[in-house]
Amino acid sequence: MAETAVVTAALVLIGNELLSGRTKDANLPFLADRLNALGIQLREARIVPDVEEEIIAAVDACRNRYDYVFTTGGIGPTHDDITAGSIAKAFGVALERNAEAVRRLEAHYAGRMELNEARLRMAMIPAGATLIDNPVSAAPGFQIGNVFVMAGVPAIMQAMFDGIASRLVGGTPIQSRTVSCGLPEGTLAAGLGALQERYPDISIGSYPHFRAGAFGVAIVLRGVDAGRLDTAVEELCDLMRNLGGTPVIESPPER
Amino acid sequence: MAETAVVTAALVLIGNELLSGRTKDANLPFLADRLNALGIQLREARIVPDVEEEIIAAVDACRNRYDYVFTTGGIGPTHDDITAGSIAKAFGVALERNAEAVRRLEAHYAGRMELNEARLRMAMIPAGATLIDNPVSAAPGFQIGNVFVMAGVPAIMQAMFDGIASRLVGGTPIQSRTVSCGLPEGTLAAGLGALQERYPDISIGSYPHFRAGAFGVAIVLRGVDAGRLDTAVEELCDLMRNLGGTPVIESPPER
Repeated sequence: MAETAVVTAALVLIGNELLSGRTKDANLPFLADRLNALGIQLREARIVPDVEEEIIAAVDACRNRYDYVFTTGGIGPTHDDITAGSIAKAFGVALERNAEAVRRLEAHYAGRMELNEARLRMAMIPAGATLIDNPVSAAPGFQIGNVFVMAGVPAIMQAMFDGIASRLVGGTPIQSRTVSCGLPEGTLAAGLGALQERYPDISIGSYPHFRAGAFGVAIVLRGVDAGRLDTAVEELCDLMRNLGGTPVIESPPER
Repeated sequence: MAETAVVTAALVLIGNELLSGRTKDANLPFLADRLNALGIQLREARIVPDVEEEIIAAVDACRNRYDYVFTTGGIGPTHDDITAGSIAKAFGVALERNAEAVRRLEAHYAGRMELNEARLRMAMIPAGATLIDNPVSAAPGFQIGNVFVMAGVPAIMQAMFDGIASRLVGGTPIQSRTVSCGLPEGTLAAGLGALQERYPDISIGSYPHFRAGAFGVAIVLRGVDAGRLDTAVEELCDLMRNLGGTPVIESPPER
């Protein structure tokens, strides 16, 4: 089998609103999906409040362990937007007014709104960081080391990510296959465990669901070798049929 | 001001499917909301894969720091369900077949399905743990120390949580008020920061949104003293009006 390159990432989602139940995060599923498509394996996510020491601890733990760290949230103009300052402290660099960020804010607000002190806070960027474009509302994110700092508003975060995707170097893409059936998980479990033992290079996950009073299960197979995945899927379909189930192979997402 | 009791919690959401983008977590928003209603402050959430050392590390970090830890996922009958064994290792106790759990599984499966070895795995519970009822599919969760281990399927997790809510001791309930307006965040920022300084006992969060090409902002005030919250809301409404905005006070959720 060819050598596979493993590239890993973590997310740090920043914001009291995610922990209070006010806001349902939409950034993790988006980033999980996009990173996966780039061959970058999301290994961990942490959700932390707008508290400097919590942001620093989470970012430090992740940036020393994974190839990439992506943060969302806390880079706006208000008093509770403390991500940039926290990241500067994590890296031990100054937080300074970035001339290019000021220029972008000036261009964006000219003739529309006052570029007041609060808005100028959004030009405070850790020294040595590279800006991340914000085509929606100008105020940039930034990259420092292996940490990418993005907005929390999903529409802005997604536009920022589109802009940085070409900077990211992915590993061998992970492919996946999903096979569902109406059998209960426990009926499939022994055969599934044996299948996993025969295919140690494939990660096999079993995801039960419970809809309208009936249990069913989706089996997800993930690996780098399409041929191996396909033969494992064939074996899985045989297993399901032998147990009285009807396997349904879900179409892989278009990429 | 009366002494306030602070009770804290963390969530550890377990499952490769949450990190691959396959499954969008629904358990965090539910638990955030319910814990909040019980006067328990959710301070952190971690999403980890089905990897024993990752589960142990996350649970250990959280259980030593917060009053309560809740986990979701990984307690089913298949090879990738490794949460119970991981928690047993975290606590340094044996994972053993729990007689009451076996009895519940026997009663549930009798006359319907075989209680095979895979299903009996769901009766493997850390020594000394207390069972958490599962009124949906019988296989119990469990509590050990300050850690509550629940299913990942939302319908089951929610039923489990309903059963344990009475075991939880909350602190002083946090109340919240939300005031929205169509002003951009940066226009409000200076006055908002000054308001936060006048009300250090209230946590004031600013949450911009971007809908149909227009920015707006929701300000959330959280604290334990309803009277203080109400006067802060009055000041905030005045601030918004003075800046040309129209404050809209959102109704608090029914509890």
